[in-house]
Amino acid sequence: MPSISPTLAAAMADAASAVVEALEHILPKSDFPEQKLFDAMRYGALGGGKRLRPFLVLSSAQIFGVNPDCALRAAAAVECVHCYSLVHDDLPAMDNADLRRGKPTVHKKYDEATAVLAGDALLTIAFEILSDPRTHEDPQVRCRLVTALAKASGVHGMVGGQMLDLIAETTQLDIGAITRLQRMKTGELIAFSAEAGAILGKTSQQQHNALRAYAHDLGLAFQIIDDLLDAEGTEAETGKSVGRDAKAGKATFVTVLGASRARNQAKLLSEQAIQHLSVFDGRAKHLEDVARFVVDRKS
Amino acid sequence: MPSISPTLAAAMADAASAVVEALEHILPKSDFPEQKLFDAMRYGALGGGKRLRPFLVLSSAQIFGVNPDCALRAAAAVECVHCYSLVHDDLPAMDNADLRRGKPTVHKKYDEATAVLAGDALLTIAFEILSDPRTHEDPQVRCRLVTALAKASGVHGMVGGQMLDLIAETTQLDIGAITRLQRMKTGELIAFSAEAGAILGKTSQQQHNALRAYAHDLGLAFQIIDDLLDAEGTEAETGKSVGRDAKAGKATFVTVLGASRARNQAKLLSEQAIQHLSVFDGRAKHLEDVARFVVDRKS
Repeated sequence: MPSISPTLAAAMADAASAVVEALEHILPKSDFPEQKLFDAMRYGALGGGKRLRPFLVLSSAQIFGVNPDCALRAAAAVECVHCYSLVHDDLPAMDNADLRRGKPTVHKKYDEATAVLAGDALLTIAFEILSDPRTHEDPQVRCRLVTALAKASGVHGMVGGQMLDLIAETTQLDIGAITRLQRMKTGELIAFSAEAGAILGKTSQQQHNALRAYAHDLGLAFQIIDDLLDAEGTEAETGKSVGRDAKAGKATFVTVLGASRARNQAKLLSEQAIQHLSVFDGRAKHLEDVARFVVDRKS
Repeated sequence: MPSISPTLAAAMADAASAVVEALEHILPKSDFPEQKLFDAMRYGALGGGKRLRPFLVLSSAQIFGVNPDCALRAAAAVECVHCYSLVHDDLPAMDNADLRRGKPTVHKKYDEATAVLAGDALLTIAFEILSDPRTHEDPQVRCRLVTALAKASGVHGMVGGQMLDLIAETTQLDIGAITRLQRMKTGELIAFSAEAGAILGKTSQQQHNALRAYAHDLGLAFQIIDDLLDAEGTEAETGKSVGRDAKAGKATFVTVLGASRARNQAKLLSEQAIQHLSVFDGRAKHLEDVARFVVDRKS
């Protein structure tokens, strides 16, 4: 990881470059006949994005003085899982999205079968990365990372949340159900990202819990803003298809609370997230800044 | 694992029941709104099948006196990966199969989006199972299992093989390319299944290598018979759609070698597989028997 520069934007850009470079090395290239699969994985993972989750991994690891090379591998693993979820969520049978990060989605660029397989392979490689001794010398730590990532991304986390999201298209959800949905769909992986530093740093349960609580508030704030951008943003601003929730008649934080209350709620969650970091006595500056950033972002 | 009875059929049936019972406990049930996802996972994993891979895990673990409860968890993990691959391979964008094990495929029983997600969740839970301390007390062993399963099922293994299989529909492969395809598509996961016992038993590299060599020959023999069943079997016998390779104009061991030479090749591979087991001085009886079984099977 490069040295983090004083402003958040620069720090995030540095972290994004570092994780892209790590993914460049980790994701296979080939001139085998199945090259298309490798290309699609790289297209799905290397094509931009905020790299918020890697930034959280790197920033939380920094608090505990974790070896930056180890943190970068964990960050790359989380990003593989995040990118696989985007590739599968964009499929015609799911969100049927043509555009992602301003470019054709993987199944549009390649084809549907390749997109299914590229997603499968990105998910699989995440666990290969985490269980590798280069990610941490202590196998207990590597196992804890694998367990935590699997839980965050499985039925009780991201995949379960995506299922709920599909159900939300035909069932009217209340605010409690929407909160649970989003906590599973995006919150758990964001929580894992912040916790990864604590796992790598073998820190106290108190500090681990503080990061978890921080990340859960951050995740919800992030999602509320996502819903606002979907409702109010343009394709040019966000780089992805917008207005899909309204089109699908889906209940979101915005449709249930209204835009103004939703934005206030996101701000409150962001402040609450920052309060959880008080246990680190100012050593979690980047995490504080990113909690402010997620509610101010325009894409 | 129940005590293994003298005949292979009974031993395989016992192993199949044991792994189904383990999966029954491991795979989540729920009355949450996302219940459909849990149902689809269970439908995809619990609905029958030979359970060859779990049998290999249990049989190889038995050679080294591994705790049967630990072996059963590793067996369940392999089966989750195998079943996820079937769910995704059957999708309309892939093999577009309506029938599997005599019943509607997951996307036919539920819907396509649910099938994508159920597959994703089955893959994810496999790594959660392996990294759990109940699978082995030594985290080094658990990490080795995770690494080996990820490699066997990722781009250089099963998913890469599936990509090649799709390419084979439009490209004429020679026997070398078909062998590589099948080694990746089914061979690597079968090899992992046999190796899992060696990893759990922390055995010598020599014994580990013997199991790997055994499983690779077994896997190819298994696949050649699969191709023969697809070419010559009936839907009633095999419980799945047949004649798909011919319909897709796909090169297989059977189309390239002809049925008779293909069957001979499978028999040779089976004998060679058994020879690799000589290092175990008769302690790998079940593995010997299963190598004979795979070339005699009718479904």
